[in-house]
Amino acid sequence: MAPSRTLKLTIAYDGTNYVGWQRQENGLSVQQLVEEALQPMCGGDVPVVMGASRTDAGVHASGQVASVRVGFEHPATAVHRALNVRLPADVRVLAVEDAAPGFHARFDARGKSYRYRIATARVPLPFDRWFLWHMPQPCDVEAMRAAARCLVGRHDFSSFQARGATVLDGWRTLERVEVEHLGSEIHVHVDGDGFLRHMVRIVVGTLVDIGVGHRGVESMAATLAACDRQAAGRTAPAHGLTLLEIRY
Amino acid sequence: MAPSRTLKLTIAYDGTNYVGWQRQENGLSVQQLVEEALQPMCGGDVPVVMGASRTDAGVHASGQVASVRVGFEHPATAVHRALNVRLPADVRVLAVEDAAPGFHARFDARGKSYRYRIATARVPLPFDRWFLWHMPQPCDVEAMRAAARCLVGRHDFSSFQARGATVLDGWRTLERVEVEHLGSEIHVHVDGDGFLRHMVRIVVGTLVDIGVGHRGVESMAATLAACDRQAAGRTAPAHGLTLLEIRY
Repeated sequence: MAPSRTLKLTIAYDGTNYVGWQRQENGLSVQQLVEEALQPMCGGDVPVVMGASRTDAGVHASGQVASVRVGFEHPATAVHRALNVRLPADVRVLAVEDAAPGFHARFDARGKSYRYRIATARVPLPFDRWFLWHMPQPCDVEAMRAAARCLVGRHDFSSFQARGATVLDGWRTLERVEVEHLGSEIHVHVDGDGFLRHMVRIVVGTLVDIGVGHRGVESMAATLAACDRQAAGRTAPAHGLTLLEIRY
Repeated sequence: MAPSRTLKLTIAYDGTNYVGWQRQENGLSVQQLVEEALQPMCGGDVPVVMGASRTDAGVHASGQVASVRVGFEHPATAVHRALNVRLPADVRVLAVEDAAPGFHARFDARGKSYRYRIATARVPLPFDRWFLWHMPQPCDVEAMRAAARCLVGRHDFSSFQARGATVLDGWRTLERVEVEHLGSEIHVHVDGDGFLRHMVRIVVGTLVDIGVGHRGVESMAATLAACDRQAAGRTAPAHGLTLLEIRY
């Protein structure tokens, strides 16, 4: 029977031990795990599970969304249970729903929310070390906030795209770039309609460069206008980043 | 030169990968790591680092305290830095201070605080899986609170001591046994002047047995009075437990 039913999966994962969401030759991806966990229900065929966001190696997700076309008739609740039995403890399916037949997790996504966590203590507690970028230098959060404001809106974000990335149209809309100070952590919240490769990590790296005084607050507007990766700051490490939500 | 100086170390660790605080033949302990990290400063002798609490395998600490007698004269700040350079990322020294000459982390301790974390969501997020006991059955937090109240005070806690433990005097004082409901987590806070082997874990296991209805609220007083391990409930798994603080 041809796949005629579309399932929407909401998935959380600790990305520490994976090469990222997307299947790759060089290691284990979350996509591969989810596809292999679905396979026994699909009569042996490997289903193609499309994720809304191709998270990098080491990046986490609390609300990745994926779609898959399937031929079987098991109820969504049974699929949900079976997936979590088969998946390892660092990948959890939070929900399985029947979606409209044409639903596509990536193409239908209207927005995505990310959160980046920075630890500012001289010696942070070890518990969240795979989820925090440690930045012991004093960070001027107000300077980061001021710089973040000029990124909100519709812009060509080519300066914040990884070198070698192939997307030619750098225009994206960021609805929110907010810097939150929470005790010994700084959180950067970025919501947008789409993201270039490494975009959140380069935005965060450039904000931190401003926070620690390597760059002036006023430099952010020029960085944005340059449309050149060399104009922006460092790329923040992957492990501080979590994909929170996909909006449809 | 004979060791004449006493250092007080405050240490945090993710206990997941260790056999516990105390040196053991069967695997790597946090004590061994800290002693080996100090050794180069001690002229080759292995110093004996006494921890205030012998945490079990898999138990975490955000405020373990240890004392060590040393002969060297390096300032405490330099010792602090050197230790964190040598220790792995899951063990962090939070503070190094010069203590009064006779200070002993264990014998001088006046009280200890522990926190136990329980995840109640049907499918918890994977990020804190090494720090949470997953209990998907509905838990009556009010029943747990009522049962917890009769443990506060000075009692013989022999019912809450691991079988085979050798401590004969089971009398201890608990200043606080509180059950906190935080969204999809239940936290059990236990503060006391001393603890028998597995005591916090058996207290939590028995409270959860009451929460899920396997035992009645009123059973707790009889359990305490029995002075018999068989009267209490299950032992909660180690990985939900964190040693928060040692009081002097």
